[in-house]
Amino acid sequence: LLCTGIYNNLLFSSTIDRNKNVIPGEVLEAIISGSQEFFDKMKNFGVNITYMGGETADVGDVVRTITVNGTMTARWPKSKLITNDKIKPGNVIVGLAGYGQANYESEYNSGIASNGLTSARHDVLYKTYGARFHESYDTSLDESVVYIGPHQVEDKVKVESGEVMNIGKLLLSPTRTFAPVMKELLENHFEKIDGLIHCSGGGQTKCLKYVPENVRIVKDNLFEAPIIFQIIQQASKADDTEMYQVFSMGTRLEIYTNERDADNIISISKSFGVDARVIGRVEESEKKELVIKTGEGNLFF
Amino acid sequence: LLCTGIYNNLLFSSTIDRNKNVIPGEVLEAIISGSQEFFDKMKNFGVNITYMGGETADVGDVVRTITVNGTMTARWPKSKLITNDKIKPGNVIVGLAGYGQANYESEYNSGIASNGLTSARHDVLYKTYGARFHESYDTSLDESVVYIGPHQVEDKVKVESGEVMNIGKLLLSPTRTFAPVMKELLENHFEKIDGLIHCSGGGQTKCLKYVPENVRIVKDNLFEAPIIFQIIQQASKADDTEMYQVFSMGTRLEIYTNERDADNIISISKSFGVDARVIGRVEESEKKELVIKTGEGNLFF
Repeated sequence: LLCTGIYNNLLFSSTIDRNKNVIPGEVLEAIISGSQEFFDKMKNFGVNITYMGGETADVGDVVRTITVNGTMTARWPKSKLITNDKIKPGNVIVGLAGYGQANYESEYNSGIASNGLTSARHDVLYKTYGARFHESYDTSLDESVVYIGPHQVEDKVKVESGEVMNIGKLLLSPTRTFAPVMKELLENHFEKIDGLIHCSGGGQTKCLKYVPENVRIVKDNLFEAPIIFQIIQQASKADDTEMYQVFSMGTRLEIYTNERDADNIISISKSFGVDARVIGRVEESEKKELVIKTGEGNLFF
Repeated sequence: LLCTGIYNNLLFSSTIDRNKNVIPGEVLEAIISGSQEFFDKMKNFGVNITYMGGETADVGDVVRTITVNGTMTARWPKSKLITNDKIKPGNVIVGLAGYGQANYESEYNSGIASNGLTSARHDVLYKTYGARFHESYDTSLDESVVYIGPHQVEDKVKVESGEVMNIGKLLLSPTRTFAPVMKELLENHFEKIDGLIHCSGGGQTKCLKYVPENVRIVKDNLFEAPIIFQIIQQASKADDTEMYQVFSMGTRLEIYTNERDADNIISISKSFGVDARVIGRVEESEKKELVIKTGEGNLFF
């Protein structure tokens, strides 16, 4: 919703399916009260989300452990929507980091977010987790792809801030919300924003779904991928092309704007503890294309 | 939503979690287009539901086969909500049947609806289904409760209408919607309806959640339970108390009204092919209680 310009007056309804033989009521309570805590925190930033309750079903026949889904609804004036149709050659792209510690987060966020989690878990964690936790994976999978990583969840890692955390924490970091930052930008600087793209499914190539047919996106100044993605890449031996297609690699939200407004947007983001920089630009082109410059060279999509 | 009085201007968003190794894209297509077909059919009755799309996630680590959830949202005037606070001694209860064939249904509906399905499947179907379809149940269950019934899905059963159908069809009957009937009642006879209770989770005891503290509900004229519930009860050996607590037993929606308006409500329901009758009444009492008269005697809750 945020990347369509909606940041307030939200209704949230949750849908939880669980196997009650594995997931006791205490887990449900923690999920529900944790959601409410998050909404309370967002309320302090003027982002009002009402928890409408929802449905919890005991369906152990279909669910191994638990699935937690939620649906957000809002009413919003059409004139205040971001539709991405203003994206054009000449735009610069301000990238917002998905990792670090925003001043509305209570600890370091690895930036892993919510895509590629299944493969990350299997590629990073050690074989014995499969034997110990049968309920945590699809038992019809070939054993050669089930928990084939070099790490234990307790393995220690030094993150960018210098803090030492364990790998389990990094794999479980919540997906960072940009709601407080975007509320400020959308309420007071709406006209400066030509487009918003959230690097979720599709990672750094997600923009190809939303930019016009005939532009070239050049991303030559992305954040250096934070440590969790280095750990995943070392463990999985995936090449850069695959990594940038699956994961955000640290640069999580793209704001398409004009060169003169970029600095102001960057300072606002930084004032919330969310790192930001100009990560690239939109150029004229005969076809839709994307170039990503990494330390190793150029990737073309 | 219907039993709060909302029957129109609905938004629907679906949330599908699947194991892509077991559930191919064709299944997703059938579910999505089937939902749209249902909404198109409801539109013919003036019940407008807009399919907003939704989210489909490949999460084989947590889902054995597939879970299909949906969230409905609507805006509605407060003055047109049914809150059940008008339910009072003197009310009669018109019960709407959940089985048979409404004139908006394409075939006989067993009335099984969406509660108790897991136990119904295990109690009714034959042992070999477990061996053949491991993905269809919680493999951590004790074998003594997994598919312990006497039936094959192809076993033939004569239903109330005289038609012969197989047990698989009866177990898979869709939950009947009462939307077309209720639209007519809520639009033109709103003032006659003091309460609406849908006998979903809790079956015939669901009313205890919604009626006032100090009334006795007497249900002495419920529909005779249709064949599917007889099959389940014979297979599971459950007593009547348990059956009426888990299943609707054929009487699916309760309309609390006045004696003089009941006949009119019943004829409107029947005009849609949905059988209806006065199934009971609300009496004065010192405490909240429920009496169900069955062929075998009285059940007290």
